[in-house]
Amino acid sequence: MQANDFGDEDVFTLHRGGKLAVSATVPLGSARDLSLAYTPGVAQVCEAIAADPPLAETYTWTSHTVAVVTDGSAVLGLGNIGPRAAMPVMEGKAILFKQFGGVDAVPICLATQDPDEIVATVTALAPSFGGINLEDIAAPRCFEIERRLDEALDIPVFHDDQHGTAIVVLAALRNAAKLLDRKLGELRVVVSGAGAAGVAVTRMLIAGGVSAASTVVCDSRGILHRERPDLQGVKAELAELTNAAGYTGGIEEALAGADVLIGVSGGQIPESAVAAMAPGAIVFALANPTPEVDPAVAGRYAAVVATGRSDFPNQINNVLAFPGVFKGALAARATRITDAMKVAAADAIAAVVAGELRTDVIVPSPLDPRVAPAVAEAVAAAAREEGVCRG
Amino acid sequence: MQANDFGDEDVFTLHRGGKLAVSATVPLGSARDLSLAYTPGVAQVCEAIAADPPLAETYTWTSHTVAVVTDGSAVLGLGNIGPRAAMPVMEGKAILFKQFGGVDAVPICLATQDPDEIVATVTALAPSFGGINLEDIAAPRCFEIERRLDEALDIPVFHDDQHGTAIVVLAALRNAAKLLDRKLGELRVVVSGAGAAGVAVTRMLIAGGVSAASTVVCDSRGILHRERPDLQGVKAELAELTNAAGYTGGIEEALAGADVLIGVSGGQIPESAVAAMAPGAIVFALANPTPEVDPAVAGRYAAVVATGRSDFPNQINNVLAFPGVFKGALAARATRITDAMKVAAADAIAAVVAGELRTDVIVPSPLDPRVAPAVAEAVAAAAREEGVCRG
Repeated sequence: MQANDFGDEDVFTLHRGGKLAVSATVPLGSARDLSLAYTPGVAQVCEAIAADPPLAETYTWTSHTVAVVTDGSAVLGLGNIGPRAAMPVMEGKAILFKQFGGVDAVPICLATQDPDEIVATVTALAPSFGGINLEDIAAPRCFEIERRLDEALDIPVFHDDQHGTAIVVLAALRNAAKLLDRKLGELRVVVSGAGAAGVAVTRMLIAGGVSAASTVVCDSRGILHRERPDLQGVKAELAELTNAAGYTGGIEEALAGADVLIGVSGGQIPESAVAAMAPGAIVFALANPTPEVDPAVAGRYAAVVATGRSDFPNQINNVLAFPGVFKGALAARATRITDAMKVAAADAIAAVVAGELRTDVIVPSPLDPRVAPAVAEAVAAAAREEGVCRG
Repeated sequence: MQANDFGDEDVFTLHRGGKLAVSATVPLGSARDLSLAYTPGVAQVCEAIAADPPLAETYTWTSHTVAVVTDGSAVLGLGNIGPRAAMPVMEGKAILFKQFGGVDAVPICLATQDPDEIVATVTALAPSFGGINLEDIAAPRCFEIERRLDEALDIPVFHDDQHGTAIVVLAALRNAAKLLDRKLGELRVVVSGAGAAGVAVTRMLIAGGVSAASTVVCDSRGILHRERPDLQGVKAELAELTNAAGYTGGIEEALAGADVLIGVSGGQIPESAVAAMAPGAIVFALANPTPEVDPAVAGRYAAVVATGRSDFPNQINNVLAFPGVFKGALAARATRITDAMKVAAADAIAAVVAGELRTDVIVPSPLDPRVAPAVAEAVAAAAREEGVCRG
């Protein structure tokens, strides 16, 4: 793997004092400025909102603000490192929100990993924000937390490790299939990993046109199927939904003759298993920093290869999704983020490079400035179409 | 009273979209920038903090960040208008924090007014911030919430409506007494109002040298004294602590022959009561927008008059205190804000105008740029002196 072009010292120097600041967007240099922005002027705005609460969206920053909430339990590939150690990632996320989506994001790192306490805390602070981006919360509690918050709140709640990844995977798979002249519904897809990302990717691909019956999901114990006695919750649901043929065994059995491998597990997949896939296969090996299959090895057998890394072609990077998803949801005053909005986001990402597809260009660069505006527009249109907008 | 030099339209136009933004303090234009500030570089910083948690103060923004937390229950003079309508005030507070103290403040408006839930929520989000500024929370629950958070957290917790006001009142009284060649300990002081501000002002003045025995506090039912059967909690404590002479009755009885009136009640005080104060009296009538006594009326009897308004001399404005208090507490890595730190803040505010005292200049202007740095330095020194600093 390629070395980074920076050293430890560069990283620590850059992080000194953190990466974020809050600033005023109004002048505050004179007594008149103070009287307008604070007392006595501000009282008129407060009274107007008290009389008509939706005016808060017009006269406060909540209309363009999200909380990036974590409990520090599943941070990057580092695991359960807690809220304080998670903060640099959340600050990074916040600056990406601003840079690409123009969204003002505030990192909220919680001193609890109890689902009830997380739900209660986020519910209590929700009036302060226009949306909630859940981040790096471990499976399976991330599913329950997101579901309960989605039900409790009238603002969008989005667990990025699930849906951000899933949206970009769907975008990439659409373009890979297009390039290879295949239809999504004909592909036999294997998802390796049934954590937060694996579950969401599976659901998103099905929502986007992949056949549930022809999809096979593996966890660390092997293929999910209806006869497995150890499955509960979302995994049991996936076993019902997928794998109509009743495949059993491990990743080798799953991959034999399959068209697509989506690796979101971190576990290594042997070359022999990849070699046994169908001709013209598609391999997304997304674990960071070590892909499930070395992309050079995968390239010997597969027609299209993608990873999660910035130093290989076709980087599946969530930053292609979340800034535009929230920008669009906030602009439309959406109360939630539906499957149709996520599919619209994936289609918009795919469309940005649809005219320039190559085996090493199935998704835009994470720095491509065309992406977030296109995603935002598509998401806002889908929200209006779905009728999930306030007011 | 003087009219404002702006109209409703100016206020609403200024508030459109809110008054705050979050921004990155690091570059993010290139792939290398992304790799340093986000993955993969950020992982090294996370791992360093996980191994040595106090490094979060060095490598995240928490070292210069406070949450401005409200439940919307006692906003300005508007009362219980709820969290959404409170947001414009909290945004205003945040920009004052930045403008005067260089502190990055995030408004957190809570969807609950239950003390247990407020304590649980703030405790859960505390790792995200370097300090907690409680704001516009109604008495008496504000006392319990502050006490419990102060015990639970290792970062400063400060209810500004109590202590910000109390610090500036002490500063103003020090300078008024100096100007009149009086000693604080000789003054007979009446505090009219036993809500959040009244309780804190009384305690702060006593900590600063006013005689507890010679202080009399009134609530809406009259003078607090030991024989009153209706007093509980902090009011019962104040009745024990103050009024050694056992005055009874109402504000008229309290003010007869008194040297100082501190009005923090909003209730009107009749001219006859002010006229019955001792010669050379000091009157601070701090209710907004309508002072307890019209300052022109008070000026007929008192030697020094102050209000809470910007359109009269001697404005007692919390902005003289809170930006410097938190700037100093954060700089010293203080775990709490002690009485000695508050007295130091008051002394520093008073000292800024000590060389230019006049009856209409007993406190600095809220825009005076000398104040916050002086307060911060004094508060940090007092924190070190008190031994309440981390690490």
